[in-house]
Amino acid sequence: MGRPTIADIARRAGVSKGAVSFALNGRPGVSEATRARILRVADEMNWRPHSAARALGGARADAVGLVIARPARTIGVEPFFSQLLSGLQAVLSAHSVALHLMVVEDTAAEIEVYRNWASEHRVDGFIVVDLQVRDPRPEVLEELALPAVVLGGPGRGGGPLRIWADDREAMLSIVDYLAAIGHRRIAHLAGLPHFQHTQRRIRALRDASRRLGLEEAVSVPTDFSDAEGAAATRTLLSRPRRPTAIVYDSDVMAVAGLGVAGEMGVAVPGELSIVSFDDSVLARIVHPPLTALSRDTFALGEQVARSLLAVVDQTGPARDLQMPTPRLTVRESTSPPAAGSSVRATVAPTVDSGSEPV
Amino acid sequence: MGRPTIADIARRAGVSKGAVSFALNGRPGVSEATRARILRVADEMNWRPHSAARALGGARADAVGLVIARPARTIGVEPFFSQLLSGLQAVLSAHSVALHLMVVEDTAAEIEVYRNWASEHRVDGFIVVDLQVRDPRPEVLEELALPAVVLGGPGRGGGPLRIWADDREAMLSIVDYLAAIGHRRIAHLAGLPHFQHTQRRIRALRDASRRLGLEEAVSVPTDFSDAEGAAATRTLLSRPRRPTAIVYDSDVMAVAGLGVAGEMGVAVPGELSIVSFDDSVLARIVHPPLTALSRDTFALGEQVARSLLAVVDQTGPARDLQMPTPRLTVRESTSPPAAGSSVRATVAPTVDSGSEPV
Repeated sequence: MGRPTIADIARRAGVSKGAVSFALNGRPGVSEATRARILRVADEMNWRPHSAARALGGARADAVGLVIARPARTIGVEPFFSQLLSGLQAVLSAHSVALHLMVVEDTAAEIEVYRNWASEHRVDGFIVVDLQVRDPRPEVLEELALPAVVLGGPGRGGGPLRIWADDREAMLSIVDYLAAIGHRRIAHLAGLPHFQHTQRRIRALRDASRRLGLEEAVSVPTDFSDAEGAAATRTLLSRPRRPTAIVYDSDVMAVAGLGVAGEMGVAVPGELSIVSFDDSVLARIVHPPLTALSRDTFALGEQVARSLLAVVDQTGPARDLQMPTPRLTVRESTSPPAAGSSVRATVAPTVDSGSEPV
Repeated sequence: MGRPTIADIARRAGVSKGAVSFALNGRPGVSEATRARILRVADEMNWRPHSAARALGGARADAVGLVIARPARTIGVEPFFSQLLSGLQAVLSAHSVALHLMVVEDTAAEIEVYRNWASEHRVDGFIVVDLQVRDPRPEVLEELALPAVVLGGPGRGGGPLRIWADDREAMLSIVDYLAAIGHRRIAHLAGLPHFQHTQRRIRALRDASRRLGLEEAVSVPTDFSDAEGAAATRTLLSRPRRPTAIVYDSDVMAVAGLGVAGEMGVAVPGELSIVSFDDSVLARIVHPPLTALSRDTFALGEQVARSLLAVVDQTGPARDLQMPTPRLTVRESTSPPAAGSSVRATVAPTVDSGSEPV
């Protein structure tokens, strides 16, 4: 015998399907005596309450959940998020599905919200973002048997559907290009170090640096804010031997870095090449426009929404999906390094620290 | 006798309050016979179904609705929206209230969603944005007796709560400043002309221009996109006599305009002063950083959320609220116009079109 349906339980308990649904989900609408009887019957039939979301045919919430554990204020300045939201909305609104959105303190609070929204049938599925190193969320969602799409991967098989792009290949394409046009001193302003994609990019730069025999390739972790992007750029450009190229993990940081170069009189791209890992209107409208990895985040949002709706409807093939690897769009912020451009004009080349003073 | 409560109807019909709630809202959970009886009793007691949202004490959705009738793609590039969302989330998340978000085609679809979400108790109240000239939405919300906060105003008294800032005063402060430092030819890249705030800004510029006797003050309507902002800037800067200052209705357009100035070799601020009506990280991180009206959109979002929660809880004074008038933050994109800077270097001053050819 397969899993009991709501109708099976209703028939056995002699109540309506609606009454079963309310009883199983702890919602008002049935008397306490009826609720107790329904729960007893469900238990006898081996009903597993955590699978309720998928099994409650017809009780569609027509909404999907997105819970974000970042400070509310930073979400407003990150074009990645607004573009992802735009793409999600484009598909969801075509299906008259709403986005149920909440910002929380941390991952523990996020998991608590998953449990609540699932038990209250507020949403038909979840979108999980900001995948971390050793992230507990995919396992929780699998345990709760909640339809979900996790942005990031690849996974190890099983668990919620994964959608991801190859951050390693993307970073290699940037470093290979910069090295090919002559850069030997490359810096990388990375994002939050506990995110999986940050780790992948840092490792890719390190590996490429070894393979290409670069003079310097350093990754500096930041919180993705324009303030840290600017501060770290100032530090890098104040060194006696500064990098000739900086790769920024977000366009907000890249534009902040461009501003610092302007303020310090460092010509872009003459003395410093700038590459942004995110392309957005921001990267295109500054002067000079930025060389950037064109990742179509709007399209990513659309794909995530389509996949989640397919999982919810159990129509589509629920297979993990790799998005196209972002491609480098070369604009005017990169060029071969000028001879001696890694040395500050106002400072004589530093003497090798190992040699004796003359 | 006052309005009947859910408890009154339940007592008279001899059923639970939950059953009344389900019956009145067309949701499953009661038999058809019971539903018919409850509806008959409710009708006898003059129950008005459209006021259900406010009256259903205890059946709180713990969510507020935001429906946006703009193309999903443009929402992703507009810092105003992401900052407003951030501010809303900051307050809502502190109260464990979710944001129920949907993008629709037009105002008619938006009103349809209001009706659906209200009857399905998906939300406890609504946030209304993009107030238009002769906007039907405040009246619909009042008719449905739905708790709501309308962003824009002032209203004519009655209807949903209004929260607004004085766009007229804000525009006057920009024009007065530009005129005081010597600008006589000012252009204004306006937003969508059917928005109330766009109309207010256009009228304010026209009035100030008359009062100050400016040589030229022209408002050009756009769709708020960076593409139209750039195109209109190119047109203005290609004129034989170009403006010495341009006021942009959004920071996305202002930064696009700055890019066009760079591309055309027009020095900012030497030959062209740029003012943005919106301040954001975008305005601060470009080089030169932009003089902008500092409107704290994050704080506006927080205030809107606080007011809406007060209306929903019926705790706060449900009074219309005027936010502080945005103040001009002068950065490096404005300066007195250089002598002759409104004339393109390559072109001789045009002869007054009214005079005879020499």
